[in-house]
Amino acid sequence: MVDAAAGSAAGRSETARLEAFSDAVIAIAMTILALELRVPILEAVTSKNLVSAILDQWPSYFAFALSFTTILIMWINHHARLSLVDRIDGLLMFANGFLMMAIVALSYPTALVGEYLNTPAGRAAAVTYGLAVLATSAAWNIFMLALRPERGLLRPGVPPEVIATTRRRVAIGFLIYLVATGVAAVNAYLGLGIMTAMWVFWATFAYRALNRRERWSADATSLEVEATSPSDG
Amino acid sequence: MVDAAAGSAAGRSETARLEAFSDAVIAIAMTILALELRVPILEAVTSKNLVSAILDQWPSYFAFALSFTTILIMWINHHARLSLVDRIDGLLMFANGFLMMAIVALSYPTALVGEYLNTPAGRAAAVTYGLAVLATSAAWNIFMLALRPERGLLRPGVPPEVIATTRRRVAIGFLIYLVATGVAAVNAYLGLGIMTAMWVFWATFAYRALNRRERWSADATSLEVEATSPSDG
Amino acid sequence: MVDAAAGSAAGRSETARLEAFSDAVIAIAMTILALELRVPILEAVTSKNLVSAILDQWPSYFAFALSFTTILIMWINHHARLSLVDRIDGLLMFANGFLMMAIVALSYPTALVGEYLNTPAGRAAAVTYGLAVLATSAAWNIFMLALRPERGLLRPGVPPEVIATTRRRVAIGFLIYLVATGVAAVNAYLGLGIMTAMWVFWATFAYRALNRRERWSADATSLEVEATSPSDG
Amino acid sequence: MVDAAAGSAAGRSETARLEAFSDAVIAIAMTILALELRVPILEAVTSKNLVSAILDQWPSYFAFALSFTTILIMWINHHARLSLVDRIDGLLMFANGFLMMAIVALSYPTALVGEYLNTPAGRAAAVTYGLAVLATSAAWNIFMLALRPERGLLRPGVPPEVIATTRRRVAIGFLIYLVATGVAAVNAYLGLGIMTAMWVFWATFAYRALNRRERWSADATSLEVEATSPSDG
Repeated sequence: MVDAAAGSAAGRSETARLEAFSDAVIAIAMTILALELRVPILEAVTSKNLVSAILDQWPSYFAFALSFTTILIMWINHHARLSLVDRIDGLLMFANGFLMMAIVALSYPTALVGEYLNTPAGRAAAVTYGLAVLATSAAWNIFMLALRPERGLLRPGVPPEVIATTRRRVAIGFLIYLVATGVAAVNAYLGLGIMTAMWVFWATFAYRALNRRERWSADATSLEVEATSPSDG
Repeated sequence: MVDAAAGSAAGRSETARLEAFSDAVIAIAMTILALELRVPILEAVTSKNLVSAILDQWPSYFAFALSFTTILIMWINHHARLSLVDRIDGLLMFANGFLMMAIVALSYPTALVGEYLNTPAGRAAAVTYGLAVLATSAAWNIFMLALRPERGLLRPGVPPEVIATTRRRVAIGFLIYLVATGVAAVNAYLGLGIMTAMWVFWATFAYRALNRRERWSADATSLEVEATSPSDG
Repeated sequence: MVDAAAGSAAGRSETARLEAFSDAVIAIAMTILALELRVPILEAVTSKNLVSAILDQWPSYFAFALSFTTILIMWINHHARLSLVDRIDGLLMFANGFLMMAIVALSYPTALVGEYLNTPAGRAAAVTYGLAVLATSAAWNIFMLALRPERGLLRPGVPPEVIATTRRRVAIGFLIYLVATGVAAVNAYLGLGIMTAMWVFWATFAYRALNRRERWSADATSLEVEATSPSDG
Repeated sequence: MVDAAAGSAAGRSETARLEAFSDAVIAIAMTILALELRVPILEAVTSKNLVSAILDQWPSYFAFALSFTTILIMWINHHARLSLVDRIDGLLMFANGFLMMAIVALSYPTALVGEYLNTPAGRAAAVTYGLAVLATSAAWNIFMLALRPERGLLRPGVPPEVIATTRRRVAIGFLIYLVATGVAAVNAYLGLGIMTAMWVFWATFAYRALNRRERWSADATSLEVEATSPSDG
């Protein structure tokens, strides 16, 4: 009873609203990370002691920067992936909800790492952080499962290779985070280092893709180029 | 002096702005829940102690997930219900304001449950949580009261059965939350369990509705189908 | 070099962006009020003690509801007033910035009242709250000063009486808050009671205006009706 | 394969989304500053003691107002600069991300200044604040580097002088903040005073520019006027 064009327009509008809502949640999640940067309490209040106390908090700054960058890159990815979507169904809706929950919750392990990284409890903090990142990675895998071409949510003209490539990437990502979390149980710094390297790698990748495509868009043409590029995968 | 079409267009624009504002409040309310996940303070700082302390905080994670999901589902419902609205009057405006206040305030009983569920004060925490959920449910009932067809706020073509069905549902919801709050006064876990089951049930319902309708929209045709579906009510 | 129509369109777009930004700030300011609702710390953890502690926090709930409603009504007013604006200049920009700062800062005196109202320091908390409300009222007065018709920021067709009426109202509001703050120095409850009565009065007024105008819009016709209505002022 | 007009339209849409996201982050960053205004804890709870304690917190209010105004002015500048942009590439994307991180993190040194300015640790707090402001200034310099005309991100018709003028200004700004941070190491009040004077100066400048251009827009004509105005630079 609803013709295809109107249906597609309504679907896009829902997608736009879901994206706007997700953008808001992501923006807030990034910002509240700063609330975990706590003013140090000094026994003797001198400039020298305050400088020492501020420097001693370096794990907090590291964890803040790591989580902020992580969520920022996820925002870019979220946009790129939603730009392929024509309409939303229940599975995608709840995959997105799970992803939002995992992103929002990231402030907690971030604070844990900030508080405990350079203490004897550092490994427990780093493993907890790894598990939280694994939760976001799991959400991404469900998200991409919902976008399988045969489920019919994609915009017309999106080549199946784009979905296949991204699905493979998020699956490999999950495995690497699994390894990094295991490593963190032995050496907190090494485990977190692998996770940081992953974001540096993905940021570099996103940066190059952005420049290679000449402009940041999601038209089918450029996606096809990306999907068949030998440097991908 | 204003012709009907222009009036309707202006009304839609106000509705869109109210929805955008409500979306922002809901997104922030969901996100600040994470701020109640507090980093544990250890007496002896070891990885083993930190793991224990993190595991002991399970009521906080449960309460976070419960409230996050609750508010997420309310967001979906809020959108579905506002999509029926053509213009806003005072009663709807204040019903929406009351609903926003109740949603925002939910972070407080969430923190209470996180702190006290597995203590001798668990029942008081669970009852307080139940009362807060009852407040959101009351707000929904006023909201739907404002949408009665005879009040003239609905978009043309919205079948009265849609409103009647939803009004019945939110009224029944209020009664079940009343029972769950009463049960929580006797057994905190059972009371919260009923509330959790409600959200699982409603999420499942929303999920099925989303798929049954084939796309997430609010056109009168699909609403009529929903309203007359034998599985409803 | 820019024709009038294009200029006006660009102006409206800037106004829309300022409104969207202000909406975001207001939505967040409302939501973070909930963070001042603190979980009580009990000496002996029993349900009875928790119930007592929760009930003892009633000033926090009262202050939360008062500030939430205050900001919500300001949001409605902000929208109604910006809907008269065609373009923004420096004075309006900074009046709006000052207003945002005052609204955002309201969470601090709200927490003060929640903490100290029913203590011997109640009057100091209530006076501080009154001063903060006076700051928002001062911002509104500057805001309306920027909208004087001779300054040329208004949309074509906005009758000067609308501005004059609103200017008179916000000026009277400032005087009443001044009195209420003075009263709070003698009796905290009475001072806050006057402020609460003001919001109830304004909410009732907004509610009636919303219904009288038949729909929530800002077209010049309905504004003229409002400005000349005998119940105004 | 994509014609220029369509490419430009898609580019503008991405720019609009980046701006909306940045607006959200900036709005939240401004608002959470209020969370650092902490309710004082009194030994003897009397109105007199509460008044003293509130007055003693003046560094917190000063720091709040300074950072709020700083971020508000950055918001205005961010908008003015993004209005010159036609499309986004990797460098601009990450300059913007770095800027957002620096803005969000500003709440931490703001709280430091509020806590320690009028203590023997005041200089360390003021220097830390200066370093944080330097980080935002560095981000702006990278941002403007990304907008160099030869990089091809600008909208057609943007005169190169506009970019050159702004680049010179943000470079000079960096140097002044460097000096102010150095001064803060000797005298905290003087260092912060220079930073405050900078914002007052820039706010005055923005205010005048807003009025001189007659309306707050970014059309090439008015920009050319600004760029060649003798009062600039």
